[in-house]
Amino acid sequence: MEQIAIQGIAGCYHETAARGYFADREIEVLPCLSFDELFARMAADPALLGIAAIENTIAGSLLPNHELLQQSRARIIGEQKLRISHVLAALPGQTPDDIAEVRSHPIALMQCGDFLKTLPGMKIVERDDTAGSAREIAEGRLAGTAAICGADAARLYGLEILRRGIETNKHNFTRFLLLADERRAAEFADPAHTDKASLLFTLPHTRGSLSKVLTVLSFYDINLTKIQSLPIIGREWEYRFYVDVTFDDPMRYRQAIDAARPLTSDFRILGEYAECPNPAI
Amino acid sequence: MEQIAIQGIAGCYHETAARGYFADREIEVLPCLSFDELFARMAADPALLGIAAIENTIAGSLLPNHELLQQSRARIIGEQKLRISHVLAALPGQTPDDIAEVRSHPIALMQCGDFLKTLPGMKIVERDDTAGSAREIAEGRLAGTAAICGADAARLYGLEILRRGIETNKHNFTRFLLLADERRAAEFADPAHTDKASLLFTLPHTRGSLSKVLTVLSFYDINLTKIQSLPIIGREWEYRFYVDVTFDDPMRYRQAIDAARPLTSDFRILGEYAECPNPAI
Repeated sequence: MEQIAIQGIAGCYHETAARGYFADREIEVLPCLSFDELFARMAADPALLGIAAIENTIAGSLLPNHELLQQSRARIIGEQKLRISHVLAALPGQTPDDIAEVRSHPIALMQCGDFLKTLPGMKIVERDDTAGSAREIAEGRLAGTAAICGADAARLYGLEILRRGIETNKHNFTRFLLLADERRAAEFADPAHTDKASLLFTLPHTRGSLSKVLTVLSFYDINLTKIQSLPIIGREWEYRFYVDVTFDDPMRYRQAIDAARPLTSDFRILGEYAECPNPAI
Repeated sequence: MEQIAIQGIAGCYHETAARGYFADREIEVLPCLSFDELFARMAADPALLGIAAIENTIAGSLLPNHELLQQSRARIIGEQKLRISHVLAALPGQTPDDIAEVRSHPIALMQCGDFLKTLPGMKIVERDDTAGSAREIAEGRLAGTAAICGADAARLYGLEILRRGIETNKHNFTRFLLLADERRAAEFADPAHTDKASLLFTLPHTRGSLSKVLTVLSFYDINLTKIQSLPIIGREWEYRFYVDVTFDDPMRYRQAIDAARPLTSDFRILGEYAECPNPAI
Protein backbone atom coordinates (compact mmCIF):
# COMPACT_ATOMS: atom_id res chain seq x y z
CA MET A 1 0.00 0.00 0.00
CA GLU A 2 1.32 3.44 -0.93
CA GLN A 3 2.35 5.54 2.06
CA ILE A 4 1.82 9.30 1.86
CA ALA A 5 3.18 11.88 4.28
CA ILE A 6 0.58 14.60 4.93
CA GLN A 7 0.88 17.88 6.81
CA GLY A 8 -1.52 17.59 9.68
CA ILE A 9 -3.24 14.75 11.48
CA ALA A 10 -6.04 12.41 10.52
CA GLY A 11 -9.07 14.29 9.22
CA CYS A 12 -7.13 17.30 7.94
CA TYR A 13 -7.54 18.90 4.52
CA HIS A 14 -4.31 17.29 3.35
CA GLU A 15 -5.80 13.85 4.02
CA THR A 16 -8.99 14.78 2.16
CA ALA A 17 -6.88 15.97 -0.80
CA ALA A 18 -4.65 12.85 -0.75
CA ARG A 19 -7.66 10.51 -0.72
CA GLY A 20 -9.25 12.55 -3.50
CA TYR A 21 -6.16 12.23 -5.66
CA PHE A 22 -5.73 8.49 -5.03
CA ALA A 23 -9.46 7.79 -5.22
CA ASP A 24 -8.91 4.47 -7.01
CA ARG A 25 -6.43 2.91 -4.61
CA GLU A 26 -5.79 2.22 -0.93
CA ILE A 27 -3.36 4.59 0.72
CA GLU A 28 -1.94 4.97 4.18
CA VAL A 29 -1.45 8.54 5.37
CA LEU A 30 1.46 9.42 7.68
CA PRO A 31 0.68 12.56 9.68
CA CYS A 32 3.46 15.15 10.02
CA LEU A 33 3.41 18.10 12.41
CA SER A 34 4.88 20.54 9.93
CA PHE A 35 5.95 20.91 6.32
CA ASP A 36 9.56 20.78 7.57
CA GLU A 37 8.86 17.34 9.06
CA LEU A 38 7.10 16.19 5.89
CA PHE A 39 10.07 17.05 3.68
CA ALA A 40 12.52 15.60 6.25
CA ARG A 41 10.64 12.28 6.31
CA MET A 42 10.57 12.15 2.53
CA ALA A 43 14.31 12.84 2.43
CA ALA A 44 14.91 10.00 4.92
CA ASP A 45 12.70 7.50 3.08
CA PRO A 46 12.79 7.71 -0.73
CA ALA A 47 9.85 5.28 -0.97
CA LEU A 48 7.52 7.72 0.74
CA LEU A 49 5.17 9.96 -1.20
CA GLY A 50 3.99 13.33 0.10
CA ILE A 51 1.31 15.96 -0.38
CA ALA A 52 1.80 19.66 0.36
CA ALA A 53 -0.42 22.69 -0.13
CA ILE A 54 1.28 25.19 -2.43
CA GLU A 55 -1.28 27.96 -3.00
CA ASN A 56 -4.69 29.12 -1.94
CA THR A 57 -6.97 31.53 -3.80
CA ILE A 58 -7.24 33.74 -0.70
CA ALA A 59 -3.92 33.42 1.12
CA GLY A 60 -1.83 33.18 -2.05
CA SER A 61 1.33 31.16 -2.47
CA LEU A 62 2.83 29.33 0.48
CA LEU A 63 6.36 30.62 0.00
CA PRO A 64 7.98 28.46 2.70
CA ASN A 65 6.74 25.37 0.83
CA HIS A 66 8.21 26.67 -2.42
CA GLU A 67 11.50 26.98 -0.54
CA LEU A 68 11.30 23.48 0.98
CA LEU A 69 10.40 21.99 -2.40
CA GLN A 70 13.30 23.56 -4.21
CA GLN A 71 15.77 22.48 -1.51
CA SER A 72 14.51 18.87 -1.59
CA ARG A 73 14.95 15.94 -3.95
CA ALA A 74 11.19 15.73 -4.38
CA ARG A 75 9.50 15.94 -7.75
CA ILE A 76 5.90 16.96 -8.43
CA ILE A 77 3.96 13.95 -9.74
CA GLY A 78 0.51 15.49 -9.69
CA GLU A 79 -1.78 18.18 -8.33
CA GLN A 80 -5.12 18.19 -6.52
CA LYS A 81 -7.46 21.15 -5.98
CA LEU A 82 -9.89 21.29 -3.08
CA ARG A 83 -12.66 23.68 -2.14
CA ILE A 84 -12.00 24.68 1.48
CA SER A 85 -15.06 25.17 3.66
CA HIS A 86 -14.54 25.63 7.38
CA VAL A 87 -16.87 24.83 10.29
CA LEU A 88 -16.90 25.93 13.93
CA ALA A 89 -17.01 22.79 16.05
CA ALA A 90 -17.13 22.08 19.78
CA LEU A 91 -18.00 19.33 22.26
CA PRO A 92 -21.53 17.96 21.85
CA GLY A 93 -24.05 19.97 23.81
CA GLN A 94 -22.12 23.24 23.66
CA THR A 95 -23.89 26.30 22.27
CA PRO A 96 -22.24 29.26 20.54
CA ASP A 97 -22.75 31.28 23.76
CA ASP A 98 -20.59 28.80 25.68
CA ILE A 99 -17.54 29.45 23.52
CA ALA A 100 -14.81 31.75 24.88
CA GLU A 101 -11.83 30.53 22.84
CA VAL A 102 -11.35 29.55 19.19
CA ARG A 103 -8.37 27.48 18.07
CA SER A 104 -7.12 26.78 14.58
CA HIS A 105 -4.29 27.09 12.10
CA PRO A 106 -3.34 30.75 11.41
CA ILE A 107 -4.37 30.57 7.75
CA ALA A 108 -7.78 29.14 8.65
CA LEU A 109 -8.20 31.87 11.29
CA MET A 110 -7.38 34.47 8.65
CA GLN A 111 -9.81 32.91 6.18
CA CYS A 112 -12.61 33.19 8.77
CA GLY A 113 -11.71 36.80 9.67
CA ASP A 114 -15.20 38.23 9.07
CA PHE A 115 -16.85 35.51 11.15
CA LEU A 116 -14.36 36.02 14.01
CA LYS A 117 -15.08 39.77 13.97
CA THR A 118 -18.68 38.92 14.94
CA LEU A 119 -17.33 37.36 18.16
CA PRO A 120 -15.86 40.32 20.07
CA GLY A 121 -13.72 39.42 23.07
CA MET A 122 -13.17 35.88 21.80
CA LYS A 123 -9.69 34.55 22.59
CA ILE A 124 -8.04 33.41 19.35
CA VAL A 125 -5.34 30.78 19.73
CA GLU A 126 -3.06 29.69 16.92
CA ARG A 127 -2.43 25.95 16.62
CA ASP A 128 -0.41 23.86 14.19
CA ASP A 129 -3.35 22.27 12.49
CA THR A 130 -7.09 22.63 11.91
CA ALA A 131 -7.86 18.96 12.58
CA GLY A 132 -5.42 18.97 15.50
CA SER A 133 -7.46 21.73 17.13
CA ALA A 134 -10.55 19.53 16.84
CA ARG A 135 -8.73 16.53 18.31
CA GLU A 136 -7.38 18.57 21.25
CA ILE A 137 -10.86 19.71 22.15
CA ALA A 138 -12.27 16.19 21.86
CA GLU A 139 -9.48 14.47 23.77
CA GLY A 140 -9.21 17.13 26.46
CA ARG A 141 -13.01 17.43 26.79
CA LEU A 142 -12.42 21.19 26.55
CA ALA A 143 -15.70 22.94 27.25
CA GLY A 144 -15.86 26.58 26.16
CA THR A 145 -13.39 26.03 23.33
CA ALA A 146 -14.19 25.62 19.64
CA ALA A 147 -12.07 24.61 16.65
CA ILE A 148 -12.16 25.97 13.13
CA CYS A 149 -11.65 22.90 10.98
CA GLY A 150 -13.10 20.88 8.13
CA ALA A 151 -16.35 18.96 8.49
CA ASP A 152 -14.34 15.70 8.08
CA ALA A 153 -12.25 16.50 11.15
CA ALA A 154 -15.27 17.50 13.26
CA ARG A 155 -16.97 14.21 12.38
CA LEU A 156 -13.85 12.10 12.96
CA TYR A 157 -13.30 13.51 16.46
CA GLY A 158 -16.96 13.48 17.48
CA LEU A 159 -17.43 17.23 17.72
CA GLU A 160 -20.70 19.00 17.05
CA ILE A 161 -20.78 21.55 14.24
CA LEU A 162 -22.03 24.91 15.57
CA ARG A 163 -21.67 26.83 12.31
CA ARG A 164 -20.89 25.77 8.73
CA GLY A 165 -19.34 27.72 5.87
CA ILE A 166 -17.70 30.32 8.11
CA GLU A 167 -14.96 31.16 5.60
CA THR A 168 -15.22 34.80 4.51
CA ASN A 169 -14.88 34.07 0.83
CA LYS A 170 -16.61 31.06 -0.67
CA HIS A 171 -14.16 31.10 -3.56
CA ASN A 172 -11.64 29.46 -1.28
CA PHE A 173 -9.63 26.79 -3.08
CA THR A 174 -6.33 25.20 -2.18
CA ARG A 175 -3.99 23.59 -4.66
CA PHE A 176 -1.93 20.67 -3.37
CA LEU A 177 1.14 19.12 -4.96
CA LEU A 178 1.67 15.35 -4.91
CA LEU A 179 5.36 14.63 -4.37
CA ALA A 180 7.71 11.68 -4.87
CA ASP A 181 11.46 11.33 -4.48
CA GLU A 182 13.26 11.92 -7.77
CA ARG A 183 14.25 8.21 -7.78
CA ARG A 184 10.59 7.20 -7.77
CA ALA A 185 9.08 9.96 -9.91
CA ALA A 186 9.43 7.96 -13.16
CA GLU A 187 7.00 5.32 -11.82
CA PHE A 188 4.24 7.89 -11.82
CA ALA A 189 4.93 9.31 -15.26
CA ASP A 190 1.86 9.15 -17.47
CA PRO A 191 2.88 10.71 -20.80
CA ALA A 192 -0.59 10.36 -22.34
CA HIS A 193 -2.09 12.64 -19.68
CA THR A 194 0.84 14.97 -19.00
CA ASP A 195 -0.17 18.53 -19.89
CA LYS A 196 1.30 20.67 -17.11
CA ALA A 197 4.77 21.42 -15.74
CA SER A 198 6.26 23.44 -12.90
CA LEU A 199 9.50 25.24 -13.73
CA LEU A 200 11.99 27.12 -11.59
CA PHE A 201 14.76 29.35 -12.92
CA THR A 202 16.97 32.28 -12.03
CA LEU A 203 17.61 35.13 -14.41
CA PRO A 204 20.60 37.37 -14.94
CA HIS A 205 19.95 40.97 -13.92
CA THR A 206 19.72 42.33 -17.41
CA ARG A 207 16.67 44.12 -18.72
CA GLY A 208 14.20 42.05 -20.64
CA SER A 209 15.58 38.70 -19.46
CA LEU A 210 12.16 37.49 -18.29
CA SER A 211 10.40 38.76 -21.41
CA LYS A 212 12.81 36.74 -23.57
CA VAL A 213 12.02 33.52 -21.70
CA LEU A 214 8.25 34.09 -21.81
CA THR A 215 8.38 35.06 -25.47
CA VAL A 216 10.21 31.82 -26.32
CA LEU A 217 7.58 29.83 -24.39
CA SER A 218 4.77 31.58 -26.27
CA PHE A 219 6.46 30.87 -29.63
CA TYR A 220 6.03 27.17 -28.80
CA ASP A 221 2.35 27.56 -27.79
CA ILE A 222 3.04 27.04 -24.09
CA ASN A 223 0.42 28.59 -21.80
CA LEU A 224 1.41 30.27 -18.53
CA THR A 225 -0.95 29.51 -15.63
CA LYS A 226 1.10 31.04 -12.83
CA ILE A 227 4.16 33.21 -12.42
CA GLN A 228 5.76 34.30 -9.20
CA SER A 229 9.03 36.00 -8.48
CA LEU A 230 10.47 34.42 -5.33
CA PRO A 231 12.92 36.16 -3.04
CA ILE A 232 16.33 34.47 -3.07
CA ILE A 233 17.17 34.20 0.61
CA GLY A 234 20.59 35.71 1.14
CA ARG A 235 20.26 37.92 -1.91
CA GLU A 236 17.61 40.41 -0.87
CA TRP A 237 15.28 41.75 -3.52
CA GLU A 238 16.74 39.47 -6.17
CA TYR A 239 14.32 36.95 -7.50
CA ARG A 240 13.98 33.46 -8.76
CA PHE A 241 10.99 32.70 -10.96
CA TYR A 242 8.49 29.96 -10.39
CA VAL A 243 6.34 29.32 -13.44
CA ASP A 244 3.54 26.83 -14.10
CA VAL A 245 2.77 26.06 -17.73
CA THR A 246 0.20 23.97 -19.56
CA PHE A 247 0.47 22.57 -23.08
CA ASP A 248 -1.37 20.42 -25.62
CA ASP A 249 1.62 18.98 -27.49
CA PRO A 250 4.36 17.32 -25.40
CA MET A 251 6.88 17.58 -28.26
CA ARG A 252 6.30 21.33 -28.50
CA TYR A 253 6.76 21.54 -24.72
CA ARG A 254 10.14 19.71 -24.94
CA GLN A 255 11.27 22.05 -27.69
CA ALA A 256 10.19 25.08 -25.65
CA ILE A 257 12.22 23.88 -22.64
CA ASP A 258 15.28 23.29 -24.82
CA ALA A 259 14.92 26.78 -26.29
CA ALA A 260 14.29 28.58 -22.99
CA ARG A 261 16.90 26.85 -20.81
CA PRO A 262 20.00 28.61 -22.27
CA LEU A 263 18.38 32.00 -21.49
CA THR A 264 18.31 31.21 -17.76
CA SER A 265 20.55 29.95 -14.98
CA ASP A 266 19.65 27.21 -12.45
CA PHE A 267 16.86 25.95 -14.68
CA ARG A 268 14.93 23.10 -13.04
CA ILE A 269 11.84 21.13 -13.98
CA LEU A 270 10.11 20.51 -10.64
CA GLY A 271 7.61 18.12 -12.20
CA GLU A 272 5.54 17.20 -15.25
CA TYR A 273 2.05 15.95 -14.52
CA ALA A 274 -1.65 16.00 -15.37
CA GLU A 275 -3.56 19.22 -14.73
CA CYS A 276 -6.37 18.89 -12.16
CA PRO A 277 -9.71 20.34 -13.30
CA ASN A 278 -11.06 23.20 -11.20
CA PRO A 279 -13.55 22.03 -8.56
CA ALA A 280 -17.10 23.38 -8.50
CA ILE A 281 -18.08 26.05 -5.95
CA MET B 1 1.61 67.90 11.12
CA GLU B 2 1.13 64.99 8.74
CA GLN B 3 -1.04 62.18 10.16
CA ILE B 4 -0.19 58.61 9.15
CA ALA B 5 -2.31 55.55 9.80
CA ILE B 6 -0.12 52.59 10.77
CA GLN B 7 -1.00 48.93 11.26
CA GLY B 8 -0.23 48.20 14.87
CA ILE B 9 0.24 50.27 17.98
CA ALA B 10 2.99 52.61 19.16
CA GLY B 11 6.41 50.97 18.91
CA CYS B 12 5.51 48.60 16.07
CA TYR B 13 7.58 48.03 12.95
CA HIS B 14 5.13 50.13 10.92
CA GLU B 15 5.88 53.12 13.16
CA THR B 16 9.64 52.55 12.81
CA ALA B 17 9.22 52.40 9.02
CA ALA B 18 7.01 55.53 8.91
CA ARG B 19 9.47 57.54 11.01
CA GLY B 20 12.32 56.29 8.83
CA TYR B 21 10.55 57.44 5.69
CA PHE B 22 9.61 60.86 7.09
CA ALA B 23 12.96 61.31 8.86
CA ASP B 24 13.03 65.02 8.08
CA ARG B 25 9.60 66.00 9.40
CA GLU B 26 7.31 65.63 12.38
CA ILE B 27 4.58 63.08 11.95
CA GLU B 28 1.74 61.82 14.09
CA VAL B 29 1.03 58.09 13.83
CA LEU B 30 -2.55 56.79 14.15
CA PRO B 31 -2.54 53.16 15.29
CA CYS B 32 -4.98 50.79 13.54
CA LEU B 33 -5.82 47.29 14.72
CA SER B 34 -5.79 45.78 11.24
CA PHE B 35 -5.04 46.55 7.62
CA ASP B 36 -8.82 46.55 7.05
CA GLU B 37 -9.15 49.36 9.60
CA LEU B 38 -6.19 51.24 8.09
CA PHE B 39 -7.76 51.28 4.62
CA ALA B 40 -11.20 52.09 6.07
CA ARG B 41 -9.81 55.11 7.95
CA MET B 42 -8.01 56.32 4.85
CA ALA B 43 -11.23 55.96 2.84
CA ALA B 44 -13.11 58.00 5.48
CA ASP B 45 -10.49 60.76 5.67
CA PRO B 46 -8.80 61.67 2.37
CA ALA B 47 -6.27 63.84 4.23
CA LEU B 48 -4.82 60.84 6.04
CA LEU B 49 -1.67 59.10 4.85
CA GLY B 50 -0.99 55.44 5.50
CA ILE B 51 1.79 52.88 5.57
CA ALA B 52 1.29 49.17 4.90
CA ALA B 53 3.71 46.26 4.65
CA ILE B 54 3.45 44.65 1.22
CA GLU B 55 6.16 41.98 1.12
CA ASN B 56 8.77 40.32 3.24
CA THR B 57 11.81 38.40 2.05
CA ILE B 58 10.79 35.38 4.16
CA ALA B 59 6.99 35.39 4.23
CA GLY B 60 6.59 36.68 0.68
CA SER B 61 3.86 38.96 -0.55
CA LEU B 62 1.04 39.97 1.74
CA LEU B 63 -1.75 39.15 -0.67
CA PRO B 64 -4.61 40.52 1.47
CA ASN B 65 -2.88 43.93 1.37
CA HIS B 66 -2.58 43.74 -2.41
CA GLU B 67 -6.33 43.13 -2.46
CA LEU B 68 -7.10 46.02 -0.06
CA LEU B 69 -4.86 48.35 -2.05
CA GLN B 70 -6.48 47.58 -5.37
CA GLN B 71 -9.98 48.02 -3.94
CA SER B 72 -9.10 51.37 -2.37
CA ARG B 73 -8.63 54.90 -3.70
CA ALA B 74 -5.12 54.96 -2.27
CA ARG B 75 -2.03 55.61 -4.37
CA ILE B 76 1.51 54.58 -3.56
CA ILE B 77 3.62 57.69 -2.92
CA GLY B 78 6.77 55.93 -1.72
CA GLU B 79 8.37 52.83 -0.29
CA GLN B 80 10.47 52.04 2.76
CA LYS B 81 12.50 48.91 3.44
CA LEU B 82 13.32 47.76 6.95
CA ARG B 83 15.51 45.00 8.33
CA ILE B 84 13.33 43.06 10.78
CA SER B 85 15.07 41.75 13.89
CA HIS B 86 12.93 40.27 16.66
CA VAL B 87 13.57 40.05 20.39
CA LEU B 88 12.00 37.94 23.14
CA ALA B 89 10.89 40.32 25.88
CA ALA B 90 9.22 39.91 29.26
CA LEU B 91 8.63 41.76 32.53
CA PRO B 92 11.83 42.95 34.22
CA GLY B 93 13.33 40.27 36.45
CA GLN B 94 11.90 37.34 34.48
CA THR B 95 14.35 34.70 33.27
CA PRO B 96 13.91 32.48 30.20
CA ASP B 97 13.01 29.58 32.54
CA ASP B 98 10.04 31.54 33.89
CA ILE B 99 8.38 31.77 30.48
CA ALA B 100 5.52 29.36 29.69
CA GLU B 101 3.73 31.34 26.96
CA VAL B 102 4.93 33.36 23.96
CA ARG B 103 2.66 35.87 22.22
CA SER B 104 3.12 37.64 18.93
CA HIS B 105 1.80 38.28 15.45
CA PRO B 106 1.53 35.06 13.37
CA ILE B 107 4.12 36.20 10.83
CA ALA B 108 6.63 37.07 13.58
CA LEU B 109 5.97 33.66 15.20
CA MET B 110 6.65 32.00 11.85
CA GLN B 111 9.84 34.03 11.36
CA CYS B 112 11.13 32.81 14.74
CA GLY B 113 10.19 29.17 14.04
CA ASP B 114 13.66 27.73 14.74
CA PHE B 115 13.95 29.60 18.02
CA LEU B 116 10.48 28.47 19.11
CA LYS B 117 11.40 24.85 18.35
CA THR B 118 14.07 25.12 21.06
CA LEU B 119 11.28 25.77 23.58
CA PRO B 120 9.30 22.51 23.66
CA GLY B 121 5.95 22.65 25.45
CA MET B 122 5.78 26.43 25.13
CA LYS B 123 2.25 27.74 24.60
CA ILE B 124 2.22 29.87 21.44
CA VAL B 125 -0.55 32.47 21.25
CA GLU B 126 -1.35 34.50 18.17
CA ARG B 127 -2.03 38.19 18.70
CA ASP B 128 -2.84 41.05 16.35
CA ASP B 129 0.44 42.83 16.74
CA THR B 130 4.04 42.38 17.88
CA ALA B 131 4.14 45.65 19.85
CA GLY B 132 0.62 44.95 21.15
CA SER B 133 1.88 41.71 22.68
CA ALA B 134 4.58 43.67 24.49
CA ARG B 135 2.06 46.24 25.74
CA GLU B 136 -0.33 43.54 26.99
CA ILE B 137 2.40 41.94 29.05
CA ALA B 138 3.52 45.30 30.47
CA GLU B 139 0.03 46.59 31.28
CA GLY B 140 -1.25 43.27 32.61
CA ARG B 141 1.97 42.62 34.58
CA LEU B 142 1.84 39.15 33.01
CA ALA B 143 4.56 37.05 34.63
CA GLY B 144 5.48 33.88 32.73
CA THR B 145 4.56 35.39 29.38
CA ALA B 146 6.94 36.79 26.77
CA ALA B 147 6.38 38.76 23.57
CA ILE B 148 8.20 38.46 20.28
CA CYS B 149 8.52 42.06 19.13
CA GLY B 150 10.95 44.71 17.98
CA ALA B 151 13.53 46.21 20.33
CA ASP B 152 11.70 49.58 20.01
CA ALA B 153 8.50 48.07 21.38
CA ALA B 154 10.26 46.29 24.25
CA ARG B 155 11.92 49.58 25.25
CA LEU B 156 8.73 51.64 24.89
CA TYR B 157 6.73 49.34 27.17
CA GLY B 158 9.49 48.81 29.74
CA LEU B 159 10.09 45.13 29.07
CA GLU B 160 13.42 43.40 29.51
CA ILE B 161 14.97 41.76 26.47
CA LEU B 162 15.71 38.08 27.17
CA ARG B 163 17.03 37.20 23.73
CA ARG B 164 17.93 39.30 20.68
CA GLY B 165 18.04 38.38 17.00
CA ILE B 166 15.73 35.37 17.37
CA GLU B 167 14.54 35.49 13.75
CA THR B 168 15.53 32.30 11.89
CA ASN B 169 16.87 34.09 8.87
CA LYS B 170 18.87 37.28 9.27
CA HIS B 171 18.04 38.26 5.69
CA ASN B 172 14.64 39.33 6.93
CA PHE B 173 13.49 42.55 5.25
CA THR B 174 10.05 44.02 4.95
CA ARG B 175 9.01 46.43 2.24
CA PHE B 176 6.39 49.00 3.21
CA LEU B 177 4.29 51.16 0.91
CA LEU B 178 3.51 54.79 1.78
CA LEU B 179 -0.04 55.58 0.75
CA ALA B 180 -2.10 58.71 0.08
CA ASP B 181 -5.62 59.18 -1.20
CA GLU B 182 -5.66 59.72 -4.96
CA ARG B 183 -6.80 63.33 -4.36
CA ARG B 184 -3.63 64.03 -2.36
CA ALA B 185 -1.11 61.91 -4.27
CA ALA B 186 -0.05 64.76 -6.56
CA GLU B 187 1.27 66.74 -3.55
CA PHE B 188 3.90 64.07 -3.02
CA ALA B 189 4.99 63.78 -6.64
CA ASP B 190 8.71 64.36 -7.02
CA PRO B 191 9.46 63.91 -10.73
CA ALA B 192 13.22 64.43 -10.31
CA HIS B 193 13.49 61.37 -8.05
CA THR B 194 10.74 59.16 -9.51
CA ASP B 195 12.30 55.97 -10.82
CA LYS B 196 9.89 53.22 -9.80
CA ALA B 197 6.25 52.36 -10.47
CA SER B 198 3.76 49.71 -9.36
CA LEU B 199 1.41 48.47 -12.07
CA LEU B 200 -1.64 46.23 -11.98
CA PHE B 201 -3.30 44.69 -15.01
CA THR B 202 -5.44 41.80 -16.14
CA LEU B 203 -4.70 39.82 -19.26
CA PRO B 204 -6.93 38.06 -21.73
CA HIS B 205 -6.57 34.27 -21.66
CA THR B 206 -4.65 34.01 -24.87
CA ARG B 207 -1.23 32.46 -25.06
CA GLY B 208 1.69 34.80 -24.93
CA SER B 209 -0.31 37.75 -23.59
CA LEU B 210 2.09 38.31 -20.68
CA SER B 211 5.17 37.89 -22.85
CA LYS B 212 3.89 40.62 -25.18
CA VAL B 213 3.49 43.08 -22.32
CA LEU B 214 6.92 42.32 -20.85
CA THR B 215 8.57 42.47 -24.26
CA VAL B 216 7.11 45.93 -24.87
CA LEU B 217 8.38 47.08 -21.46
CA SER B 218 11.87 45.75 -22.25
CA PHE B 219 11.87 47.55 -25.64
CA TYR B 220 11.58 50.79 -23.67
CA ASP B 221 14.40 49.87 -21.22
CA ILE B 222 12.05 49.31 -18.30
CA ASN B 223 13.41 46.97 -15.63
CA LEU B 224 11.16 44.48 -13.83
CA THR B 225 11.86 44.20 -10.09
CA LYS B 226 8.85 42.07 -9.12
CA ILE B 227 6.12 40.11 -10.81
CA GLN B 228 3.31 38.24 -9.18
CA SER B 229 0.20 36.66 -10.58
CA LEU B 230 -2.64 37.36 -8.16
CA PRO B 231 -5.72 35.19 -7.90
CA ILE B 232 -8.84 37.07 -9.00
CA ILE B 233 -11.32 36.33 -6.25
CA GLY B 234 -14.48 35.02 -7.83
CA ARG B 235 -12.64 33.79 -10.91
CA GLU B 236 -10.59 30.89 -9.53
CA TRP B 237 -7.21 30.20 -11.07
CA GLU B 238 -7.42 33.26 -13.29
CA TYR B 239 -4.87 35.87 -12.52
CA ARG B 240 -4.23 39.53 -12.39
CA PHE B 241 -0.62 40.66 -12.61
CA TYR B 242 1.12 42.93 -10.17
CA VAL B 243 4.39 44.26 -11.55
CA ASP B 244 6.99 46.64 -10.08
CA VAL B 245 9.27 48.37 -12.55
CA THR B 246 12.24 50.72 -12.30
CA PHE B 247 13.51 53.08 -14.97
CA ASP B 248 16.14 55.76 -15.62
CA ASP B 249 14.25 57.88 -18.14
CA PRO B 250 10.75 59.06 -17.17
CA MET B 251 9.86 59.83 -20.81
CA ARG B 252 10.76 56.30 -21.85
CA TYR B 253 8.63 55.02 -18.94
CA ARG B 254 5.61 57.07 -20.15
CA GLN B 255 6.06 55.72 -23.66
CA ALA B 256 6.29 52.17 -22.32
CA ILE B 257 3.03 52.57 -20.40
CA ASP B 258 1.28 53.98 -23.46
CA ALA B 259 2.54 51.06 -25.54
CA ALA B 260 1.70 48.33 -23.00
CA ARG B 261 -1.73 49.53 -21.88
CA PRO B 262 -3.68 48.50 -25.04
CA LEU B 263 -2.36 44.92 -24.64
CA THR B 264 -4.07 44.57 -21.24
CA SER B 265 -7.42 45.12 -19.58
CA ASP B 266 -8.00 46.93 -16.25
CA PHE B 267 -4.58 48.60 -16.47
CA ARG B 268 -3.86 50.69 -13.37
CA ILE B 269 -0.85 52.63 -12.17
CA LEU B 270 -0.89 52.12 -8.39
CA GLY B 271 1.86 54.66 -7.86
CA GLU B 272 5.03 56.29 -9.19
CA TYR B 273 7.68 57.02 -6.61
CA ALA B 274 11.35 56.96 -5.63
CA GLU B 275 12.97 53.55 -5.14
CA CYS B 276 14.24 52.93 -1.60
CA PRO B 277 17.82 51.62 -1.45
CA ASN B 278 18.25 48.19 0.12
CA PRO B 279 19.16 48.39 3.82
CA ALA B 280 22.36 46.82 5.13
CA ILE B 281 22.25 43.49 6.97
